[in-house]
Amino acid sequence: MADANPLADDRTGLLVMTPEECEELLASTPIGRVVFVDDGQPIALPVNYRWFEDCVVFRTLEGQKLRAAVLEAPVSFEVDRWDPSTQSGASVLVKGQASDVTDWAEKERLEELGVVPWAKQPWKQSWVRIVPDEVTGRRLR
Amino acid sequence: MADANPLADDRTGLLVMTPEECEELLASTPIGRVVFVDDGQPIALPVNYRWFEDCVVFRTLEGQKLRAAVLEAPVSFEVDRWDPSTQSGASVLVKGQASDVTDWAEKERLEELGVVPWAKQPWKQSWVRIVPDEVTGRRLR
Repeated sequence: MADANPLADDRTGLLVMTPEECEELLASTPIGRVVFVDDGQPIALPVNYRWFEDCVVFRTLEGQKLRAAVLEAPVSFEVDRWDPSTQSGASVLVKGQASDVTDWAEKERLEELGVVPWAKQPWKQSWVRIVPDEVTGRRLR
Repeated sequence: MADANPLADDRTGLLVMTPEECEELLASTPIGRVVFVDDGQPIALPVNYRWFEDCVVFRTLEGQKLRAAVLEAPVSFEVDRWDPSTQSGASVLVKGQASDVTDWAEKERLEELGVVPWAKQPWKQSWVRIVPDEVTGRRLR
């Protein structure tokens, strides 16, 4: 795939990833970071997620700060993969809008994805979906 | 160190990391993510960095979008480490202000840290330092 992508971002020396490369990274990475603004402060929090039907989906807790913040404004989602030994790596940024998953049929399909929160979470959980407006990626080599 | 930290964040089931644990993760992780707002859109971009004299330091390019954006407003810096095989992991969030490193003596000390950009970057580079206002961390197990 590397040879099929002749585009280089000369400004920073990074290569522009194709949509297929971006999707491959999104589909094969277990942890990503929800990026949002909380009371004027941009923050990023890691979550266990899936790339499902061209969207990012992850669980949140009812009443959680993250949950309220992401549903109010534009968000991003970042994933990356790095290998220090070869100094190679790639990162993808999804810009989009987050929304609650309210449809029961869709919830059932999401439950079947096997996204198990690593932390013990006794509270009522719900699903958030980020519908991408833009997906971009950069890679080294 | 795990046993020395009795604090638990019951709300999400994650453990609150001590300042020492946060610093240990910051000092031992090669890649972190600068989190900032660009034209109303919160985004996160990975950078090669060092934890140096209680600050995050990384290189930017003159004129780079990242550079302009981080110098204007509050930023965060996120690092994490995960082991899917044991479902353990930790993440640290640094909230702070970014500033240019303009002092020549300090620049020389930073050059000696060995922070080599992985990408070929022919443009003039400078250093940005994030002075933390707050450092927090959460971990599983």
